[in-house]
Amino acid sequence: MKKKKQIIQTAIISVFNKCKLVKFATGLLRNNIKIFSTSGTRSELNKNNIQTYHINRLTQYPEIMNGQIKTIHPKIFGGILGNKKKYFDVIQQYQILTIDMVIVNFYPFNNIDKNIDIEKMIDIGGPAIVRAAAKNYKNVIVITNILDYEKVLHEIYNTNSVSIKTRLQLAYKAFDYTMNYDYNILKYYSSKMKSLYANQKKHFFPKQLNLQYIKKQKLKYGENPHQKSVFYIKKKNSFTGTIGSFKQLHGTLLSYNNISDANIALECVNQFDKPACVIVKHGSPCGAAISKNIQISYLLAYNSDPISSFGGVIGFNNIIDDDTIRLILEKQFVEVIVGPEITPQGLQSIQKKKNIKLLICGYCNKKNISSLELHSVNNGLLVQQNNIVNNHIHDWVVVSKKIPSDLEKKNALFLWKIVKFVKSNAIAYGNNFHTISIGSGQTSRIDAVKIANTKYCSEYKKIDCKKQNIIMASDAFFPFRDSVDLASVVGVSCIIQPGGSIRDSEVIQAVNDHNISMIYTGIRNFKH
Amino acid sequence: MKKKKQIIQTAIISVFNKCKLVKFATGLLRNNIKIFSTSGTRSELNKNNIQTYHINRLTQYPEIMNGQIKTIHPKIFGGILGNKKKYFDVIQQYQILTIDMVIVNFYPFNNIDKNIDIEKMIDIGGPAIVRAAAKNYKNVIVITNILDYEKVLHEIYNTNSVSIKTRLQLAYKAFDYTMNYDYNILKYYSSKMKSLYANQKKHFFPKQLNLQYIKKQKLKYGENPHQKSVFYIKKKNSFTGTIGSFKQLHGTLLSYNNISDANIALECVNQFDKPACVIVKHGSPCGAAISKNIQISYLLAYNSDPISSFGGVIGFNNIIDDDTIRLILEKQFVEVIVGPEITPQGLQSIQKKKNIKLLICGYCNKKNISSLELHSVNNGLLVQQNNIVNNHIHDWVVVSKKIPSDLEKKNALFLWKIVKFVKSNAIAYGNNFHTISIGSGQTSRIDAVKIANTKYCSEYKKIDCKKQNIIMASDAFFPFRDSVDLASVVGVSCIIQPGGSIRDSEVIQAVNDHNISMIYTGIRNFKH
Repeated sequence: MKKKKQIIQTAIISVFNKCKLVKFATGLLRNNIKIFSTSGTRSELNKNNIQTYHINRLTQYPEIMNGQIKTIHPKIFGGILGNKKKYFDVIQQYQILTIDMVIVNFYPFNNIDKNIDIEKMIDIGGPAIVRAAAKNYKNVIVITNILDYEKVLHEIYNTNSVSIKTRLQLAYKAFDYTMNYDYNILKYYSSKMKSLYANQKKHFFPKQLNLQYIKKQKLKYGENPHQKSVFYIKKKNSFTGTIGSFKQLHGTLLSYNNISDANIALECVNQFDKPACVIVKHGSPCGAAISKNIQISYLLAYNSDPISSFGGVIGFNNIIDDDTIRLILEKQFVEVIVGPEITPQGLQSIQKKKNIKLLICGYCNKKNISSLELHSVNNGLLVQQNNIVNNHIHDWVVVSKKIPSDLEKKNALFLWKIVKFVKSNAIAYGNNFHTISIGSGQTSRIDAVKIANTKYCSEYKKIDCKKQNIIMASDAFFPFRDSVDLASVVGVSCIIQPGGSIRDSEVIQAVNDHNISMIYTGIRNFKH
Repeated sequence: MKKKKQIIQTAIISVFNKCKLVKFATGLLRNNIKIFSTSGTRSELNKNNIQTYHINRLTQYPEIMNGQIKTIHPKIFGGILGNKKKYFDVIQQYQILTIDMVIVNFYPFNNIDKNIDIEKMIDIGGPAIVRAAAKNYKNVIVITNILDYEKVLHEIYNTNSVSIKTRLQLAYKAFDYTMNYDYNILKYYSSKMKSLYANQKKHFFPKQLNLQYIKKQKLKYGENPHQKSVFYIKKKNSFTGTIGSFKQLHGTLLSYNNISDANIALECVNQFDKPACVIVKHGSPCGAAISKNIQISYLLAYNSDPISSFGGVIGFNNIIDDDTIRLILEKQFVEVIVGPEITPQGLQSIQKKKNIKLLICGYCNKKNISSLELHSVNNGLLVQQNNIVNNHIHDWVVVSKKIPSDLEKKNALFLWKIVKFVKSNAIAYGNNFHTISIGSGQTSRIDAVKIANTKYCSEYKKIDCKKQNIIMASDAFFPFRDSVDLASVVGVSCIIQPGGSIRDSEVIQAVNDHNISMIYTGIRNFKH
């Protein structure tokens, strides 16, 4: 037996956002729906010659306390919550008019100036009436988003009613709306609390973590083609120079790995003031350099590991020019290029290659860096402060007999900033402000050194092995002296590492044996 | 000038959870606070000889519609929202009694049976009154958590009032409570929508992502000692066999890396029905095995890479017995041991070593696996379906002239399940259901093969290189034939890989040249 259609006869409208209101209300009247509205909404409609009843027709009670209390009345909530059949007697007794439709939105309690005391803007009646309507969605249509006006009117025109599917969807949106409204209030109260407890620790890991993101875009797929994936960004949209702010100016649909790698490339180059380039593959830099311009930086980074660079993600911290683009296209196949901006000619050159994805993110304001990193595990979430440490050369300690030169120190700082982004265990070799070879992702440190050695002496590179003064950076301490012994074979002259092993004295002995200088930073840089 | 203390004279109580209520109400009366309460709360207090006024004394209006409407009245909300000074005239005119305190909690709308139509349990008046009180926290004390009764009473006893700090804290908790309440309702509506749209895609990435976690514990530190870190778990607490459910039975404070690695170890061993062991270091397995018992599995996993195993995380899928613990202690330094349960003797043996962390998680129910993985980037969040694929041998395609034996196929399946957890680019060698060597975390595939070769022939292992029939698993396709040529050197007899390179024919030629069998799975298993 088909259920009888619910004819819509009455609507309550009380909106802060009055866009599209006139057209919508006109549509309701055309369908013989009686409109009750609160003062502000009513005067807006009146201005446009749309006749509505004042809400106090339902309540026989005035709006009091500057409109704070206008809809909060048993007759209104009875009219929304009361199923006509179930509560027939009550409805009769208290002369309640059943409400079929509720259209409400509130003052948007986000993007607010946290210095103003705006508690008085918190809506109480609005969320209550929306929640009541959403609770009784089988009998009441609730609209909280002006984008739904047209769809609902369309259904009413065509069917004289609104389907249960649509009603449920609208109710879902309504609770989503009230939840978010309270979330924004909560953030405001949280900031008030923080200023009250000003001396408390800076990083606040709450007992309950509430995270909100908005969908930026669907991705081609996740880490693998059989995994679906989506990219979300933070709600507050003021973060140029980070991956959250990218605009894709060219290329096909991005994948999970593209964004993950582009993030690493951007974070890495944004450490430098000089024109920098880093090439990332499988979540780890395979080449990096700083120099007087990004074209040279790219060439140096590429030469560090031409094999791994194939299909990589290339990041820059400076405007990308046509010469650099042309050099990249000549040298290699590239998946993604990411940087702050691009010249028109550079863009034209890229547009000739349909498979290159170009992401432009603007220049980085250091304040835009996320302060927390999230990593999900099975049924849990690891949350940590991000690894932002000021690298002060004057905090370093030289522990070897040999003292590094100023140039070696500067190179050591460069490599230290690179090795921080390489998957652990990580070893980076370099000189003249570019990497020479990188050993990454090893479960024991000696293996990372072996890889760095092998790559350095690789037949693919035309460097005369053993002749150069190599700087070596290690993301964590050496557990034994073997890594130093092995490094000495290829001509390492200076090592930078955190220090802190129980066998540090053995390691220091090794550098002294090989006449290598060694710097302790005191900071470990694992990255997984 | 010191502000005058606000004397508390009136309270409204309407609670679903009646724990600790009697004691609290008694305390209020002792401070001469007049209590107004709704029917259910009032009869509970009456039973205990606590006299209160019925809420309709304030409203002159009955509770209607099965108690759905009891507090929704202008006189109550006027009493809560109306500042005595500011709205003096209105308060006089409408004979509103100012309310100083609101104590409300609701039917807990979580852990609900999604098959029951429990919309009728959604509270409308409760959240509205809580929100009103929290809005006007400067004048109204709002309590939504029974754990706050004592603290508030204590302040009233001592100061005759409640401090602004406490009021703000309580207001914050109140909005947190209403937000969460709507969050739980939203989940319920979402499940209703899903059943309505039953044929739609299974994984639903909403436009706005709302995530909630509760703090499980503080961690020693993040990936590095200078990064603070906390572990959160999902709110719904029914996930044995996953890292979210661990109980730490022994050892010092866990670090970020401990949990991250234990998660990988657990996920990896939980793939197998036979007793399995995997040793994880720096986010990647360095040894794994299945056999007739976990002691043998451990020994085989350990022998795969004794160097990397040092300080690793060891995972089991079966009860951990004393013999296994003793063997581990004899062989190596271990950071974390994780498994479903442990024998009392095993626990005793571990307790002798204070630095070993023991995590017990229960047995895995496959349904408990998280369906989405999260990975934060700067100002954004990557979300993907987890990589759970059924490995059906009958979906595999043999592309070589040589056909793998059944035993080789079974070993290939074992290695395929291990290599999936190894950081990309990844190569795993093994036979007899244990790994022999693993090459991980490389930016080019050939380097992963080189590492696997080197580790296989390492001086640390007493295996006669080139004599065994090795199975090789590769997490992604080979871009060139060079990896196969290199693998043939150490005696690889069977290769399992996804296939799909544009140079597949060249790679097939290579396996045929070396009389190696090769299986295509069609599934790629990158992991970063």
